Amino acid sequence: MKEVTVYAPATVANVVCGFDILGFALNEPNDILVMRTVNKKGVTIINKDDYNLPTIPEKNVIGAALLALLDEVKEDIGFEVESTKIIKPGSGIGSSAASAAGCVVGANHLLNNRFSNEDLVRFAMFGEKVASGVKHADNIAPCIYGGVTLIRCIHPLDIVPITSPSLWVTIVHPQIEVKTSDAREILKKQILLKDAIRQWGNIAGLVVGFMKSDYDLISRSLVDVIVEPIRSILIPGFDEVKAKSIDTGALGGGISGSGPSIFMLSKDEATALAVEKTIIEIYNKIGIDFHTYVSTINNNGIKVIDNDILQHK
Amino acid sequence: MKEVTVYAPATVANVVCGFDILGFALNEPNDILVMRTVNKKGVTIINKDDYNLPTIPEKNVIGAALLALLDEVKEDIGFEVESTKIIKPGSGIGSSAASAAGCVVGANHLLNNRFSNEDLVRFAMFGEKVASGVKHADNIAPCIYGGVTLIRCIHPLDIVPITSPSLWVTIVHPQIEVKTSDAREILKKQILLKDAIRQWGNIAGLVVGFMKSDYDLISRSLVDVIVEPIRSILIPGFDEVKAKSIDTGALGGGISGSGPSIFMLSKDEATALAVEKTIIEIYNKIGIDFHTYVSTINNNGIKVIDNDILQHK
Repeated sequence: MKEVTVYAPATVANVVCGFDILGFALNEPNDILVMRTVNKKGVTIINKDDYNLPTIPEKNVIGAALLALLDEVKEDIGFEVESTKIIKPGSGIGSSAASAAGCVVGANHLLNNRFSNEDLVRFAMFGEKVASGVKHADNIAPCIYGGVTLIRCIHPLDIVPITSPSLWVTIVHPQIEVKTSDAREILKKQILLKDAIRQWGNIAGLVVGFMKSDYDLISRSLVDVIVEPIRSILIPGFDEVKAKSIDTGALGGGISGSGPSIFMLSKDEATALAVEKTIIEIYNKIGIDFHTYVSTINNNGIKVIDNDILQHK
Repeated sequence: MKEVTVYAPATVANVVCGFDILGFALNEPNDILVMRTVNKKGVTIINKDDYNLPTIPEKNVIGAALLALLDEVKEDIGFEVESTKIIKPGSGIGSSAASAAGCVVGANHLLNNRFSNEDLVRFAMFGEKVASGVKHADNIAPCIYGGVTLIRCIHPLDIVPITSPSLWVTIVHPQIEVKTSDAREILKKQILLKDAIRQWGNIAGLVVGFMKSDYDLISRSLVDVIVEPIRSILIPGFDEVKAKSIDTGALGGGISGSGPSIFMLSKDEATALAVEKTIIEIYNKIGIDFHTYVSTINNNGIKVIDNDILQHK
């Protein structure tokens, strides 16, 4: 029997003007999965937290992703997974993606890395489908690849890793519920061509800014004229958080995923911590519960550690 | 008296998924301007070709651009311009931009380069307004900067030069008239959000492909689901030219500017020439007049040469 411990990081998807196509991974927080192979097809899930997530594999993010992977494994092999969720479900920082991507990366390690990263994204998307009804990859891809990733196209899947300069991320998760399906429902199906042109100028500027390590260009490009004006209404304090974070020195930021978390990018740790302080003051005043995180961008993606003692059993 | 000769290159704007925000300069063809300073405010235009363009400065692309520049010059100084248009007006490869950009770059040289490239784009846009009624910069910016340029935003102007690998461009100009204003009129004011998402995935992929010198990514990203399906109807033979050029080995391509010219990108000269041959066969069969050009991307923009003999008069 082999056993691994998997650290699957939180991720920020959508990234302002990068709606549905851009994401990046964080160094903190991480979900923790302990995974073992068993000599029987199938998946057993043991929850080590208080979220009471379903344990029937087909209804569980981890289960659905691993079943998709096992469909392409000939041997009679299965997985036992102990899941400790640190990333709160529904927070908007890729909680379901961490589960879906973490388990398939761990499984691939246990199977001597027979699958490509693209295969793993494909399997993990079955997990995302259980969570939100949609097979999206903008959290999964950065979770697996690390760094900033562009999902140029989803059919067929085309993932493009993008280099970026050192960046600090301040996250606030206001403890309110925004369902991904609701956040998607309120978007307009039609948009103005002139707004779309502004948006694709900004997304082009943003990816070029990342690749050139041009902080000013990143900052100027962090503008979303299409999704943020609508979705931000669902997040109390959004406008104030954004404006005052930028006043404090942040390059810019916006809604993480479909919310309610908000992320702000900064050039250095001191600014990211000052931005955190600014945000804490705002939410203390508003009076709703919240969590904050300050992290760098995680350029390595999911971390897998062999549990040596058990491996020698 | 000082005199310069200016070579102002043709440019390709819009660049498939880069509608209104992306352009690049060609090495061939070039407009030729001979410019002299005179000791009196104002602009004199002498046409050295058969296009019968207006010579009243306010109604002429060169005149309007130079008047905008002279507005910011204190001295009593003016310009005499002999214009030889090689780039046919209305061809869709930046004919008016070559005039507008060429004259302000030449003027700036005569004034010992007192203005920045951004100033020059700003002046040249007054010329574009005379030509098409719209102050767009997606031909002017690459004409002045050279290479591939992103116009992230027009208000305020934000021009971002983008590196690119060696690329060959095959252009065909079918001799039919497509007015920029008509080509703009037929576009839908509203588009589907899902189409816009595909488009901004592609534009992000395209600029990343240029910067990474990733020909496959460039090729995969050269997809326009919004403008090309509508505008291509105005260009006889478009679908066949595009499909057969790609069969011949082109990376992809589309409408140049608002048409009627079509451009195709290739990795090397042999492919670009084979693509030209393919296109010639198609238009010979259709039976309309056309011109073709094969050129590399011009990374230096407008060329200005001092006319030494006259300078010493």
